[in-house]
Amino acid sequence: MSRLRIAEIFGPTIQGEGALIGEPTVFVRTGGCDYRCSWCDSLHAVDPAHRHLWQAMTTDAVWAEITRLSRGRPLTVSLSGGNPAIQDFTALIALGQAQGYRFACETQGSIAKPWFAQLDTLVLSPKPPSSGESVDWPAFDACLSAAKGAAQIVMKIVIFDETDYAWARAATDRYPALPLYLQPGNPEVDPATPVNPQDLSDRLLWLVDKTMADGWFAPRILPQLHVLLWGNKRGV
Amino acid sequence: MSRLRIAEIFGPTIQGEGALIGEPTVFVRTGGCDYRCSWCDSLHAVDPAHRHLWQAMTTDAVWAEITRLSRGRPLTVSLSGGNPAIQDFTALIALGQAQGYRFACETQGSIAKPWFAQLDTLVLSPKPPSSGESVDWPAFDACLSAAKGAAQIVMKIVIFDETDYAWARAATDRYPALPLYLQPGNPEVDPATPVNPQDLSDRLLWLVDKTMADGWFAPRILPQLHVLLWGNKRGV
Repeated sequence: MSRLRIAEIFGPTIQGEGALIGEPTVFVRTGGCDYRCSWCDSLHAVDPAHRHLWQAMTTDAVWAEITRLSRGRPLTVSLSGGNPAIQDFTALIALGQAQGYRFACETQGSIAKPWFAQLDTLVLSPKPPSSGESVDWPAFDACLSAAKGAAQIVMKIVIFDETDYAWARAATDRYPALPLYLQPGNPEVDPATPVNPQDLSDRLLWLVDKTMADGWFAPRILPQLHVLLWGNKRGV
Repeated sequence: MSRLRIAEIFGPTIQGEGALIGEPTVFVRTGGCDYRCSWCDSLHAVDPAHRHLWQAMTTDAVWAEITRLSRGRPLTVSLSGGNPAIQDFTALIALGQAQGYRFACETQGSIAKPWFAQLDTLVLSPKPPSSGESVDWPAFDACLSAAKGAAQIVMKIVIFDETDYAWARAATDRYPALPLYLQPGNPEVDPATPVNPQDLSDRLLWLVDKTMADGWFAPRILPQLHVLLWGNKRGV
């Protein structure tokens, strides 16, 4: 049986961002990523330097940990990373949904997987120019096609600056039917460095003011609530 | 033509709480309320002492102000108060929806109105014991019946303490099909007094910890984001 490479499993806690903000969630963070965003806040699940900390787990072992943390009470499981689309979650999702659990997945949209169609929520987060990555739009569209059947598909874009903002407006014009979430970037991602709540608020206010002034009312605009609450602490 | 009593119309800004958190919104805050919650954060729209500041506006005048603020670009209009269910929004909702606007309404659920069925989102916020009010459940159920046809109906409960929490668990057991949002209370509602962000964070963390520890995964738990961002400032 193939193994899943898992950086951490934690929760339950509330989802801190995007479409499911506030939702009680157990997070399954996979190890490994095909991107290396300049401002990545999860390098411990991305940089192969941390690979020795990623566990090779069977689907059954991952499921056992989810049920232990949630005490067998159904909730939302978020597959994140890293890029969880590198791996095969077909069996885990089927196992959990049979018990009433719901599954969300957060991925940049660079790799399409058939199990996207099983999801309750697929969050596609194409990365803006500030990331240093560039989006492969045919691959992104393949993710959308693969996800047909998923209960909910949304788009989330992190905005650091004017360039990201202009890019997001143009990029999302092509997907008017996808609910869109904008999120101000967090430039301070070192777990050892305290975040500056005022700076995070100021970034959100800048984004709200700019979007409202432009009369761009399509996106919902949300902070990373967990960073406001817990800073960059892991496991919450 | 009957007039609407309006305390303020402002926006667009993002919705700060509940099911539509982050959503670009114009707020229509009505004057007048059948409740007097001990911790009311909108007394300027509730206390008849402020009645001279409420404008008697025609539906057309309210609609003109909404389109002016939104520059004719469709967004969500939130009917709040006070208790907006005292008044008749049938015509305003029809007018706006014909132009692609969406309508949400936030009410305690004490007065049912036929126009609830026209809404895109009805937020029913029964008041917990700390409010000093008590819920008339048959009236609440009448609101639910009136709202049949609304695109989305959700429940939101403010939690100040253990008593409110226990009350919320019992009250919501009767409505398993209604999406539920819990929100920590804000004890400091004087616009002239700065809020304490640490206190607000602590209240949210207390509520998250308690709910997770109890394995109560039904509610989503969200702060009043606008209070975190802007304090008790009005018009944002």
